[in-house]
Amino acid sequence: MADPRFFAVRGPFTLAELAARTGASLAAGADPGATIVDVAALDTAGPSDLSFLDNRRYVEAFKASRAGACLVAPALAAMAPEGMALLITDKPYHAYARAAQAFYPEAPVPSGRHARAAIDAAARLADDVVVEAGAVIGARAEIGARTRIGANTVVGPGVMIGADCLIGANVTLSHCLIGNAVRLLPGVRIGQDGFGYAMGAEGHLKVPQLGRVIIGDAVEIGANTCVDRGTAGDTVIGAGSCIDNLVQIGHNVKLGRGCVVVAQVGISGSTRLDDLVVIGGQAGIAGHLHVGAGALIAARSAVVKDIPAGQKVGGEPAVPVAEFYRRVAMLRRMGRRKGDENEQRD
Amino acid sequence: MADPRFFAVRGPFTLAELAARTGASLAAGADPGATIVDVAALDTAGPSDLSFLDNRRYVEAFKASRAGACLVAPALAAMAPEGMALLITDKPYHAYARAAQAFYPEAPVPSGRHARAAIDAAARLADDVVVEAGAVIGARAEIGARTRIGANTVVGPGVMIGADCLIGANVTLSHCLIGNAVRLLPGVRIGQDGFGYAMGAEGHLKVPQLGRVIIGDAVEIGANTCVDRGTAGDTVIGAGSCIDNLVQIGHNVKLGRGCVVVAQVGISGSTRLDDLVVIGGQAGIAGHLHVGAGALIAARSAVVKDIPAGQKVGGEPAVPVAEFYRRVAMLRRMGRRKGDENEQRD
Amino acid sequence: MADPRFFAVRGPFTLAELAARTGASLAAGADPGATIVDVAALDTAGPSDLSFLDNRRYVEAFKASRAGACLVAPALAAMAPEGMALLITDKPYHAYARAAQAFYPEAPVPSGRHARAAIDAAARLADDVVVEAGAVIGARAEIGARTRIGANTVVGPGVMIGADCLIGANVTLSHCLIGNAVRLLPGVRIGQDGFGYAMGAEGHLKVPQLGRVIIGDAVEIGANTCVDRGTAGDTVIGAGSCIDNLVQIGHNVKLGRGCVVVAQVGISGSTRLDDLVVIGGQAGIAGHLHVGAGALIAARSAVVKDIPAGQKVGGEPAVPVAEFYRRVAMLRRMGRRKGDENEQRD
Repeated sequence: MADPRFFAVRGPFTLAELAARTGASLAAGADPGATIVDVAALDTAGPSDLSFLDNRRYVEAFKASRAGACLVAPALAAMAPEGMALLITDKPYHAYARAAQAFYPEAPVPSGRHARAAIDAAARLADDVVVEAGAVIGARAEIGARTRIGANTVVGPGVMIGADCLIGANVTLSHCLIGNAVRLLPGVRIGQDGFGYAMGAEGHLKVPQLGRVIIGDAVEIGANTCVDRGTAGDTVIGAGSCIDNLVQIGHNVKLGRGCVVVAQVGISGSTRLDDLVVIGGQAGIAGHLHVGAGALIAARSAVVKDIPAGQKVGGEPAVPVAEFYRRVAMLRRMGRRKGDENEQRD
Repeated sequence: MADPRFFAVRGPFTLAELAARTGASLAAGADPGATIVDVAALDTAGPSDLSFLDNRRYVEAFKASRAGACLVAPALAAMAPEGMALLITDKPYHAYARAAQAFYPEAPVPSGRHARAAIDAAARLADDVVVEAGAVIGARAEIGARTRIGANTVVGPGVMIGADCLIGANVTLSHCLIGNAVRLLPGVRIGQDGFGYAMGAEGHLKVPQLGRVIIGDAVEIGANTCVDRGTAGDTVIGAGSCIDNLVQIGHNVKLGRGCVVVAQVGISGSTRLDDLVVIGGQAGIAGHLHVGAGALIAARSAVVKDIPAGQKVGGEPAVPVAEFYRRVAMLRRMGRRKGDENEQRD
Repeated sequence: MADPRFFAVRGPFTLAELAARTGASLAAGADPGATIVDVAALDTAGPSDLSFLDNRRYVEAFKASRAGACLVAPALAAMAPEGMALLITDKPYHAYARAAQAFYPEAPVPSGRHARAAIDAAARLADDVVVEAGAVIGARAEIGARTRIGANTVVGPGVMIGADCLIGANVTLSHCLIGNAVRLLPGVRIGQDGFGYAMGAEGHLKVPQLGRVIIGDAVEIGANTCVDRGTAGDTVIGAGSCIDNLVQIGHNVKLGRGCVVVAQVGISGSTRLDDLVVIGGQAGIAGHLHVGAGALIAARSAVVKDIPAGQKVGGEPAVPVAEFYRRVAMLRRMGRRKGDENEQRD
């Protein structure tokens, strides 16, 4: 059970309710009225918990689990221990996510505006916006219904934020328009100047950064990640994209819908990603490139040219993964040679 | 036109005024009294906008542009479309930067000290310093004329900040002396302890970090970048240097004047860079090295030995770029081989 | 001498006192009652300063030093200049750390709770906790004796912090339990949601992150570093571990005791490190791996499989260092070839 110091559990739910919420179907023999009080991992779950099996690696844990109920794919259901109620689904992990959301909805927050918030008289906030202590809201900012602004966060003049957003603590927002249901984790920086200079030995001349950042609905951005505003046009993060911690997104970058960007990635200025691109951790993408829809960029890749839609790439510089694996195999062999016959032949 | 929600445009300016401000000369046929109301890109500019052509790649956009006026190098002026007023200059991008600065000067800020700022009685602020809501200024801190301290920024005891600086929101400053006209973007951390321990299996012993950070005039530092203070001497960022987001600068590092450091670079302790060094994104530089003036370090390089002045290096470990390109070409070939003849011969 | 603007020096101490505090023994001829007023580097120390020699590279500086006293290993003592008092020790750098801590103990802080802090009525703080201006302490948080909460830091509901901690400015804490004598530098983010989604083209479904972050005693975490909370279990940082700036630690990661993690490292979710693992800057470790006790991972390595205890690895992908060095040597040769004989033979 999650620590009650931090998490309030809802429920209980019957198996019938959980089947409805997760889209799973109850297997024969399961009692629709049986009560489930929590979610838990296979190895820690007890008779009143719901667990899930998503990966064949955990079949042994599944066989030994004491979970009262379990989300499982049809092909693995036959391996269930006796007495376990099964909820059958093609996507056990998605179903688990929905069940866990039911037991642990987003924590309720103290409503209202803290007396220690500094809200400009010319800001427009929906009636039920929550503003925590120390938050600063600038002139002409607009904030939609049910959005929460975290403690000590700074919302600059003119910034627009939609409804149902969760803006964490110690965040800085300027020069940006933010959609609905967006989640920004602590320390996010959105809308500051991009890195643009007319360089010269006698001094680098700053080029005014006159664009904005546009963030679509249901985007999530991780802690201490930075998104710079555009130079003339806008920097855009497409709806439903998920960005991890400590990511750098340069000016004029465009992300399509549903992109996934893992921690410490850097995307250089003016690069465009189409929908559903996935980028592994610590990868870097050079500027002014185009990455097609559904491309998959392995962790720590260095992308220096356009990537076609659907292509999987890896390495430095990044190449299609088949090439990348051959390159890695060669590098491994090079390291393993005791002497160095190649050298002697040269 | 930039979003008036965030940017206030100045002007209009006549072509004669713009020529004077940018150092360009009006081409024959251009009306010195013609009025320009904004800057814009070649493809979006209209008859009352000023644009620029800096790169031969955009010659077609130049030929097709509806811009009323354009900054252009002498060699390309002949390709201008009919009716476009030309401002001739050897450095169109620098000239554009100056023109854009004229139309969009740094946003005016609400003057004064917000009632929600916490300013120690023993701090000394020039009369026209702006302190935004939630900022905290420590004892004996000194802040020069016209400097702005952003919302929820923390200026530690004894910190000195010069005149005309723009310190963003949610910044933390301690143990540092900052020059004039410095810009620190949101989330910057300056002056915290360097990473120094006398390591041992029985526990790592912290070595007191007794130096400072010295930041020269007109330095710009990007969002969430960290600069640690020196161990005994100081960490120094030379005047006019430009540092991007999420950069790590270790204790005792010295940057010369006008260095450019792109996002997510790490510079390890006690390394010295002379003037005008440029470092591409995500590169890493080991500790206790020397990089000569004007050296150019490619993105994602790993520098593990000294670099002579003016040398261009790349790769991991970093080598002169000609070597680096040959190495990359070899790696590419290694990946492309279907079988692996080399292996069979060994 | 350290800048009195930022550092208050204690002392003076006699050589006898310094020998006792550092565990060194006074060499013959040194006056136990002689007075030392400060610590300093070999090249800047004067007759009333204590210095140290830890590295044979600095023997010449040692011979020329004007330091009144010096910590030195037995083997190098004979090279001391005439008149220098010697404190003999097997670990001069550790001894220096202790001496410097004596002269420069952690700066005393203004006591009490600033009127501009926002402390929830249901938080429990020991009587002598220091809370700086703008800090926000949530409901049911508990903070131990002599702990200091920096300006504009946010401590979430239910967070527990032990005694004698130093929590820097602009930090965000949630869903975490923190031990005693922990130091968190500015901008640290602890306890935010891990990066967990059930991914799908129709939208990525957020998986509730129901664990915590547990931080052991005497841990130090650098500026702008992020530690995500666990998914179901906890993310754990073992006692005495030292983590540098801008590091990313994913959900469910476990660090043993005394680990050292240099700047900009990323550790992916569910990876476990045993005690005393050292990771160089900008390295990356994939998820669900195990790194044995005392392993040493070179800077910028990419670890993609388990590492046995005590092994030293480097490179991308990481291999034992002997292999890594051979690989690097081959890469260097590849770059140096003018033509490319290999290619022609293929």
